[in-house]
Amino acid sequence: MNINKPTLIIDKKKVCDNIKRMQSKLNASETVFRPHFKTHQLPEIGSLFRNYGIDKITVSSVSMAKMFANAGWNDITIAFPVNIREIDDINSLTENIKINLLVESIESLDFLSRHLINPVGIFIKIDTGYNRTGLVHDDPVIEKIVDYCSKCRQLSLHGFLTHAGHTYSAKGSAEILKIMETCKNILKDLKQKFIIDFPDISISYGDTPSCQIADDFKDLDEIRPGNFVYNDVMQYHIGSCSLDDIAVTVACPVVAKHLSRNEMVIYGGAVHLSKDRITADNDFNLYGYVVSYNDGGWSNPIPGAYLTSISQEHGVIKLPDSYIEEIAIGDIIGILPIHSCLTSNLLLNSYKIINQ
Amino acid sequence: MNINKPTLIIDKKKVCDNIKRMQSKLNASETVFRPHFKTHQLPEIGSLFRNYGIDKITVSSVSMAKMFANAGWNDITIAFPVNIREIDDINSLTENIKINLLVESIESLDFLSRHLINPVGIFIKIDTGYNRTGLVHDDPVIEKIVDYCSKCRQLSLHGFLTHAGHTYSAKGSAEILKIMETCKNILKDLKQKFIIDFPDISISYGDTPSCQIADDFKDLDEIRPGNFVYNDVMQYHIGSCSLDDIAVTVACPVVAKHLSRNEMVIYGGAVHLSKDRITADNDFNLYGYVVSYNDGGWSNPIPGAYLTSISQEHGVIKLPDSYIEEIAIGDIIGILPIHSCLTSNLLLNSYKIINQ
Repeated sequence: MNINKPTLIIDKKKVCDNIKRMQSKLNASETVFRPHFKTHQLPEIGSLFRNYGIDKITVSSVSMAKMFANAGWNDITIAFPVNIREIDDINSLTENIKINLLVESIESLDFLSRHLINPVGIFIKIDTGYNRTGLVHDDPVIEKIVDYCSKCRQLSLHGFLTHAGHTYSAKGSAEILKIMETCKNILKDLKQKFIIDFPDISISYGDTPSCQIADDFKDLDEIRPGNFVYNDVMQYHIGSCSLDDIAVTVACPVVAKHLSRNEMVIYGGAVHLSKDRITADNDFNLYGYVVSYNDGGWSNPIPGAYLTSISQEHGVIKLPDSYIEEIAIGDIIGILPIHSCLTSNLLLNSYKIINQ
Repeated sequence: MNINKPTLIIDKKKVCDNIKRMQSKLNASETVFRPHFKTHQLPEIGSLFRNYGIDKITVSSVSMAKMFANAGWNDITIAFPVNIREIDDINSLTENIKINLLVESIESLDFLSRHLINPVGIFIKIDTGYNRTGLVHDDPVIEKIVDYCSKCRQLSLHGFLTHAGHTYSAKGSAEILKIMETCKNILKDLKQKFIIDFPDISISYGDTPSCQIADDFKDLDEIRPGNFVYNDVMQYHIGSCSLDDIAVTVACPVVAKHLSRNEMVIYGGAVHLSKDRITADNDFNLYGYVVSYNDGGWSNPIPGAYLTSISQEHGVIKLPDSYIEEIAIGDIIGILPIHSCLTSNLLLNSYKIINQ
């Protein structure tokens, strides 16, 4: 395989294993698996999910919904507070497929009721502790939205949805599962409150760390993890995947070596990997683990080798003596990304799928 | 102007003022202005430079060189340690235009001498204190490279090049000018050392902070600032531009408001703005200043309003009471980016030029 510039290498076997593992945990329950496709954004990776019976998906923008609708997906939740400025595209989408929107204000709902041409599903976005967006469980606006939906033909209330993004800063599995339990209970209580009038109402739960760690989903009607399909150093750091579960690496050419300070420079920077990082007290910044790369795959991280700084196109790697001498300018090394969603977004025009 | 999603707004008048200001500082000297085009990466912004007599440019990748060669530029320095894996593209480029490459090892030079079809200009990359890449001034490899070039028909020694990236972490104008002086002296000494054998040898100096602050370039044969064309919050923070000199803002739709915590959520996240930020001791992260936006331009930053966190598509803004009440869901607000190079790279397919 001829790699000349930073290229996202996607290991199809690992991707399939990651999908299968998540799907198999749901066999015991009725829980719907509606994976988030924002991590890969690629129709050909999306199509792998079909082999596991998945026919409902999540995306994070109207643009992404259009792209996957064109790729044949016909039941899509746009898991982002509805952007009313994209109403024309939303109306085009709903001509042909089922779309669910997230709502958390009467202002948005008012706009939708006046401008929607076709029916949409409405999820009320609930803030279960992440504090990014959504309504808290006892906000009186929730009842108003429920009431509003019941009176408007185009607005079909689907239920309550949360993203437990605070699992990313939790300390260990027990704390992650505790967050999940709290979120689940908030959603269950809301469902209980409205189920008499809306017997089809459902609750939808997101985030990869808890969905990877948990085994019991039976009280959730739906889960929407996304990152698990690729995983990354952040998930490994949290403890929600093993190194072997990381399904992507960025293959980068070596362009310079600095033996006196045990560093080498790669063609691979912020425009390929993103600036997401893991920091430690001692001014240590980790922008990715370094692996040996060959056409069939990659090694475990090389002990003592780190991507320690990046600028627009340059990446600087610290390396142990034993390794730097083996590397030649023009060699390809691999970087396991800190945050695969942002990295894959930057390399949508530069990727290769291996182990097909 | 109909803006539906995060869009880079480029103020043509400010861009032209920024180019003119830099160009006018060079009138008194013989210094060549070879602007770095990695900041904008857009042929239509590039073409504005022609009005100021600029016909030589800098880019940071072979891909970018190809793009600007297609747009008619015929004298391009690829200011990145030569990536020998792209030799085929380099050979295609040099069929028609003049290309300068950066070299800092005999390994790369060996490869070039064996595979280059047409002549190229060679700049030796000098590390003048930034410690990212390049050779230090007394590295014996410099002499070997000079010697090698003199013996190889395809390798035409152009001189010594540095990027003073450490000006970005300098404290104030005096320190920035001091760094510039040090770098200049290192380059001048190198030139002096080799000029008898290479009378056309030149020295090339980069980075926006010092080129914006300095007035005297007479000892430099060439400067290569890039960011100055747009500027950003980082340049303002360093003190190398005024707020009025920032020529880009990202127009973003408001999608949610959280009055209880004085926050609103915009459609505008890490995939639009990048994760570059300015941090302060008290866990304060600044991902961009907030401005009022209208079709003709934007305001100064709103006091007390900050983009404080971003995820893939969401941006969370802290706002003062007085302002949050004026904003409605669906309104457009502007974000002055922290690092315009990374932001514009993410919005190459979503930009509008105003004040044309």
